[in-house]
Amino acid sequence: MIKILCVGKIKENYLKEMINDYVKRISKYMLVSIVELKDNPIHEKEIASLSAAIKRSDYNIALDLKGEKLNSEEFAKVIEKTLIINSNITFIIGPSEGLNKEILDKCSKVISFSDLTFPHGLFRGILLEQIYRAFKIINNETYHK
Amino acid sequence: MIKILCVGKIKENYLKEMINDYVKRISKYMLVSIVELKDNPIHEKEIASLSAAIKRSDYNIALDLKGEKLNSEEFAKVIEKTLIINSNITFIIGPSEGLNKEILDKCSKVISFSDLTFPHGLFRGILLEQIYRAFKIINNETYHK
Repeated sequence: MIKILCVGKIKENYLKEMINDYVKRISKYMLVSIVELKDNPIHEKEIASLSAAIKRSDYNIALDLKGEKLNSEEFAKVIEKTLIINSNITFIIGPSEGLNKEILDKCSKVISFSDLTFPHGLFRGILLEQIYRAFKIINNETYHK
Repeated sequence: MIKILCVGKIKENYLKEMINDYVKRISKYMLVSIVELKDNPIHEKEIASLSAAIKRSDYNIALDLKGEKLNSEEFAKVIEKTLIINSNITFIIGPSEGLNKEILDKCSKVISFSDLTFPHGLFRGILLEQIYRAFKIINNETYHK
């Protein structure tokens, strides 16, 4: 199972639709679950609730500006290889201020999608699209642009 | 004026809404125009029509996987500095196969947002969000996440 651990509600309807669309598309390959924690104006509390929600038994991948940069094929390879050793992959989307050492220490991998900062809702959609793309790549299926 | 030169229609309604939302938001700072060329299954023809649409008098910025990587503050700085010398900035979004030398030679700058490949419609939304974010940064306005 693929789990997305993230913080804060999505306000824009078009982002909700985009996220639902990709969740539906990915579900042909694997179950996806979005665990949305309540956001907290106090950064430390937000980070603490995120940290508490991380399961040590999952293969945890943090998305953070300081992470390793991959292209879509390399990202697909990470998912493909990980699923051999652990069928539960959790992606952790931190706040734009970044994740702390405690969370990063719980993660087996830290990936950066871009040097740019994105709104958290849009980032959730971008991540889901890349996961969907990864399954298309893993299964050798064409994906129009 | 900010111009986005791109290829292919957007199919998903949620992407159309996202694009319209950011066009509207950016228009508080500057006019945005999206010039959408017809896509062509023959890559060379698509590239040729894109190349023909580029105006030499604009400040042309190509978005390409091989470009320079910037963070959001640096991207904002590029827009801010460019607007001093040329009030017409055109962003050129190429096909996922990349742009050719002829087009890149017409551009003053080549920027890469990510090593990942995105669907062209989503990428258009991502670019518009970053342009909006840039105007927020340039004008010293807060932008919630």
